[in-house]
Amino acid sequence: MTLTFAHDTLGQRILFGSGQAAQLLADEVTRLGSQRVMLIAATYEAEIADKVTSDISIAGRFDDVVQHVPIEKAELARAMAVAEGIDLVVCVGGGSTTGFAKAVAMTTGIPIVAVPTTYAGSEATPVWGLTQAARKTTGIDPRVLPTTVIYDASLTYSLPVEMSVASGLNALAHCIDSMWAPKADPINQAFAVEGIRALAQGLPLIVTDPGSEEGREKSLYGAYLSAVSFGSAGSGIHHKICHVLGGTFNTPHAQTHATVLPYVLAFNSSAAPEAERRIAQAFDAPTALAGLQELRAKLDAPTALKDFGFHESDIAEAVSIALPIIPADNPRAVTTENLTALLYAAWSGSTPTV
Amino acid sequence: MTLTFAHDTLGQRILFGSGQAAQLLADEVTRLGSQRVMLIAATYEAEIADKVTSDISIAGRFDDVVQHVPIEKAELARAMAVAEGIDLVVCVGGGSTTGFAKAVAMTTGIPIVAVPTTYAGSEATPVWGLTQAARKTTGIDPRVLPTTVIYDASLTYSLPVEMSVASGLNALAHCIDSMWAPKADPINQAFAVEGIRALAQGLPLIVTDPGSEEGREKSLYGAYLSAVSFGSAGSGIHHKICHVLGGTFNTPHAQTHATVLPYVLAFNSSAAPEAERRIAQAFDAPTALAGLQELRAKLDAPTALKDFGFHESDIAEAVSIALPIIPADNPRAVTTENLTALLYAAWSGSTPTV
Repeated sequence: MTLTFAHDTLGQRILFGSGQAAQLLADEVTRLGSQRVMLIAATYEAEIADKVTSDISIAGRFDDVVQHVPIEKAELARAMAVAEGIDLVVCVGGGSTTGFAKAVAMTTGIPIVAVPTTYAGSEATPVWGLTQAARKTTGIDPRVLPTTVIYDASLTYSLPVEMSVASGLNALAHCIDSMWAPKADPINQAFAVEGIRALAQGLPLIVTDPGSEEGREKSLYGAYLSAVSFGSAGSGIHHKICHVLGGTFNTPHAQTHATVLPYVLAFNSSAAPEAERRIAQAFDAPTALAGLQELRAKLDAPTALKDFGFHESDIAEAVSIALPIIPADNPRAVTTENLTALLYAAWSGSTPTV
Repeated sequence: MTLTFAHDTLGQRILFGSGQAAQLLADEVTRLGSQRVMLIAATYEAEIADKVTSDISIAGRFDDVVQHVPIEKAELARAMAVAEGIDLVVCVGGGSTTGFAKAVAMTTGIPIVAVPTTYAGSEATPVWGLTQAARKTTGIDPRVLPTTVIYDASLTYSLPVEMSVASGLNALAHCIDSMWAPKADPINQAFAVEGIRALAQGLPLIVTDPGSEEGREKSLYGAYLSAVSFGSAGSGIHHKICHVLGGTFNTPHAQTHATVLPYVLAFNSSAAPEAERRIAQAFDAPTALAGLQELRAKLDAPTALKDFGFHESDIAEAVSIALPIIPADNPRAVTTENLTALLYAAWSGSTPTV
């Protein structure tokens, strides 16, 4: 097999430091020579945002952050940026907050410094999303990629353990699926493997001790890597299956990912021995599946789709919708039979086997 | 230990394809909208350069490439770029050729597409070098980082096996030293580990079969990763020692690196258990040192500095010069005694031990 790929490494400054966000942000504002900063932060995160921006001056503040970035609200933020002569957008928050900053950057070209407070990962991708008339549009624009990301794990302490674990398992699914997704390449595989290592080490520490600095840092670092690798590799079989389960059968996002992942890993393992071996190494386990299952046990992850509103009678329809959208180059050929078996196992919660 | 670091990910498009350079280059020229391409390639690589540029038109061609980029010659290349209204520099060759392209980019801001034919790695860094009045100056400028790099392993078949191995071991030393260099961070460590994997797999294949496509591809890929990780991490203890040996005692570059590396790895291993474990995994060996020694045996790497003009009586002077420049944060504290022991072992070629 020859080494043939195209990989766009996205230029970005990544700063990591627990409890250092305010200082790092002030240094970045100086380094970038910014005179007029606009802060984007949701009202419910005003306190965190105030702390993070305590060492800089703010020329404009937008706090009307809601999910899915409705275009009307995005236009308000854009108008403020123009009216105030803003030269730098600082966003403090989760994926929606970053989404508003991207909406501003998209039309104005103003650079972004992102300070994430969740594991959303949007800060590490050039993907934007806007909602108009209840319809979400997404696209890719290099201008919306934040210039700098400041990761301060102390800002994530407010994330409840359950949400950290769910979000962390979602990030883990991104990493694992990146190993065989359509645009998988060795560079994003290296990032994915590093992400698995970090999440496998970090997430259990959060469960044992929600205040664990090491746990919060490693999980945040892993979430960043997951965004980088998934952003580059695209959706593989796992995400296509989960997309169908969530979209058509309305199963809950995080639980769906957490439940399906071991069955997909078991499904692909023998057909992707190199990926299997590397995932195993990242888990520091004899096999990839053993590593994942050990982690899932520590995290008390969900085990059966039947617990989340998905019925045995739904399997055939799910298979028929998922089959045509699963990437043709998945390491193991997917058929109605083996996909039905996979979903039956995930529905029932039987032990996944390679 | 908290996760605290600053990492600048350098934005660059990386294209990999054996035998595809001409096609990939033509596509890139179109994608970048370039109308006036200047080709930089040494006269001794004219044939390769002609082949690579066979699908594009060339508005200017500079072939007076020599080592170390003398400023007078760089000025000639710069003048040609301006006179010809060049909007893209394409360089085909090794480190010196890339160096000339960087000299042009530095003053003109013209983007570069680099097509490397060696494992030099310069194409993946923003480091430039110029020589004026026999004095070499180097610096960092984001403008000299090539926009796109096209790696075509078939262009490296002309590299003799011995040179491939020497250059590959040098790249390996960059990767290993990156694990504990002053600016080591988790992101460049992930790149370094991936580089070790690639070089450990690729280099032996070249020795067994100089025409091995897999061997050439993995080695070239490893050399790229080595440049990325070393460019970010800076020089660690290994490079400081080798710099002294080469600079003061005139030992040959490649042999010095190849000989000293296992002694440095043995020296640091117990003080850097995490790095040791990850290097071992990358070698797929029980320990980092065992993996390196197995690879060195396959490559018939040199074993003793005494074979390269370094004398037992030189050790004390080498220690006194190296000691003050070895990074203070090397995982294991360096003393006159343990550095003397390290150099004595490397001089004699005794079995390195952790």
